Amino acid sequence: MRLAVMGAGAVGQAVVDQAASHGHTVVAVADSTSAVVDGSGVDAAAVCARKRDAASEIGTGAPSDALAADYDVLVEATPTTLGDAEPGFGHVERALSADRHVVLANKGPVAERYAGVCELAAASAGSLRFEATVGGAIPVLATIERIGADRVRAVRGVLNGTANFVLSRMAAAGLEYEHVLAEAQEVGVAEADPTFDVDGTDAALKCAILANVIGDREYDLDGVSVDGITGVAPSALELAETDGQTIRLIGEVGPDHVRVGPRLVPANGTLAVSGTTNIVQLETEHAGRLNLSGQGAGGAATASAVLADVDHIADQQ
Amino acid sequence: MRLAVMGAGAVGQAVVDQAASHGHTVVAVADSTSAVVDGSGVDAAAVCARKRDAASEIGTGAPSDALAADYDVLVEATPTTLGDAEPGFGHVERALSADRHVVLANKGPVAERYAGVCELAAASAGSLRFEATVGGAIPVLATIERIGADRVRAVRGVLNGTANFVLSRMAAAGLEYEHVLAEAQEVGVAEADPTFDVDGTDAALKCAILANVIGDREYDLDGVSVDGITGVAPSALELAETDGQTIRLIGEVGPDHVRVGPRLVPANGTLAVSGTTNIVQLETEHAGRLNLSGQGAGGAATASAVLADVDHIADQQ
Repeated sequence: MRLAVMGAGAVGQAVVDQAASHGHTVVAVADSTSAVVDGSGVDAAAVCARKRDAASEIGTGAPSDALAADYDVLVEATPTTLGDAEPGFGHVERALSADRHVVLANKGPVAERYAGVCELAAASAGSLRFEATVGGAIPVLATIERIGADRVRAVRGVLNGTANFVLSRMAAAGLEYEHVLAEAQEVGVAEADPTFDVDGTDAALKCAILANVIGDREYDLDGVSVDGITGVAPSALELAETDGQTIRLIGEVGPDHVRVGPRLVPANGTLAVSGTTNIVQLETEHAGRLNLSGQGAGGAATASAVLADVDHIADQQ
Repeated sequence: MRLAVMGAGAVGQAVVDQAASHGHTVVAVADSTSAVVDGSGVDAAAVCARKRDAASEIGTGAPSDALAADYDVLVEATPTTLGDAEPGFGHVERALSADRHVVLANKGPVAERYAGVCELAAASAGSLRFEATVGGAIPVLATIERIGADRVRAVRGVLNGTANFVLSRMAAAGLEYEHVLAEAQEVGVAEADPTFDVDGTDAALKCAILANVIGDREYDLDGVSVDGITGVAPSALELAETDGQTIRLIGEVGPDHVRVGPRLVPANGTLAVSGTTNIVQLETEHAGRLNLSGQGAGGAATASAVLADVDHIADQQ
C-alpha cells in the first residue's frame, strides 16, 4: 500500500522506518511545518535524519501537500488534541471523503468525535482502523473485534505507562511523587509536560475509545470520570502494602461507567504490572477474562500496531 | 455459515450451543457412533440433551453422514490423536478436497501432520484456521497472524491448565503430586486419565503447532523435547520458594528449540499464573514482549475461539 504519514514524531518516524519491511511504500510524510512527497517512495533514513536535525525541514513542500499525494492509506500520527480533535479530524475527513483508508495513531478523532468519524467512514469506500490509539503494541481492539464487541462486557486496565512507572517506583522505593516524576523525566519515561499522563487524561481518552467500540452510545473525554495520580502519597502506598495491595491508575469501561482513577489492586495480582507496561483485561461472554499486556507506548511498538492495521486493510483488498 | 461439527464432546457441544448467536447454522453434528443432519439447522438443545443421556444416540445417521451434509465450514472437534492424527486428518482432507472451509479444535492434524494439512489447504478454495488448538480462548494464533509470523522470534508459556493447577496447588499447600492430582480429578480439572496433561504431551503438541506457524520447518511431537510434572517433588517447590521462585510447566518455541518441561520462574512473575489459567508470551521484532493470558481450556471458552475463526472466514467471503 502507498502510505501518506501525517505527523513525524516518534510514531510517524517509526512507521516510515518499518513500512518497507511490511511491503508498503511511504509516498508522503508531513510534520507541522513542511512535507516531503515522492511517488516512488520517500527516503526513510533521510526523513528521520532531517527530523533529528532541528535546523532542517522534513521537506520542501507544505504539510497539506502530503494530503494531496496519491496514497492508499493515510496514517494519522499527529499529536492528540482535545475538543475538536483538529487538525487530525480534518485529515481523516479529507482522506475518507476521497475514499482512502485511514489508520490512526492519534487518539483525538476517535476519542472526541467518534460519531463524526464513524459517519465519514460509513460514507466512504475507505476503511478506518485505530489499534495504535489504545495500548500501543498490545492488540486490544483487534482482540475485541475478533471476539465481537457485543460479547465484551467490560474492560479495565493500566493504560498509561508513565503513570504506572511513577506509581510502581513510588511503591518500590517509598519516594514522593515529585521526586519520582523528576526521575522519570530524566530517563525519558515522562515528558517535560507530563500533565496528560499524570492527570489521567491520556488513560481517559483510551477509555472513551474503548467505550465507543464496545458500547451503545458515544463517549468523549467529558463523559469520563477522571482522577490522576498527583495526589497519591507514599503513605497511601505503604498502607496498601501492609494489606498485600498496591495502587495503580486503572481505567474502567463497563455498561454503566467509564472512569479512570487510582485504585487498590492486589500487589502480586495481574493488574499490578510494573514500569511502563500496560495491561488490559477483557471480560467476555464465553471466553472468560482475557489479559493482554505489553508495551503501551514507544515509537517502534506503536508503529507496529499502525502497520498491522495497514496489513489488515491490504489483506481485505 | 452452515457448520458441520465433527465431535460432540465439551467443545463440539458448546459450538452447537453458541453458533446461532454468531449467526451461523449447525446443519450436522456427529460423534463417534452416530450423527444428526438437518439442513434447516439441528436442534441444539436436543443434541446436548441426548449427549447427556448415555443411553441415547446423537441421531439416527452414521457419523459419516455429517461429512456428506451441505455445509460451508467443517468444525473438527474430535479428540486429538497422535501419529496419523486420524480420524481428524481424514475429515480435514475430505472437507478441503471438496473446497469447504475447516476450523480445527483438534490439535492432531496441525501438530502431527502440518505439512500435509497445509498442502491440502493450498490446493483448496477453502480456508483453514485453528486458533482453538493453542491456548483455548486466548487469541494466540490470531495475534501471531496480526503481527506477522516472521516477526515473532520466540514463544513461551504455560499451555496446560491441568498441569498448572496441580503445580500451583502443590506449591500453595505443600502437598504431594498424587494427592493434588486426585483432588484435581475430583473437581473435574483433571481427567480420569490425565496422562497427556501431566506428562507434557498436550503442551508439546501446542508447541509443535506454534513452531509450525512461526518457524521455517515442520515439527511434530517427535521433534519436541518433552518432560512432564510427575517427577516434581514438594521439596523442589519449597526450595524454589525460598529463592522467590516457583515451578511451572513451560513450553518454549525458539529459532533452535521446541521443548516442554518444568522450569523455575519468578514466583510473582508474569509466567507464574495460578490455577488452570494459561499464559503465552510472544517475543516480537518491534512490539517487544506481548503477554496473553486467560482460559486455556473448557468447552465454552474453546468454542468461542472456534466461532471467532468461523466469523473470520465469513468476513473474508
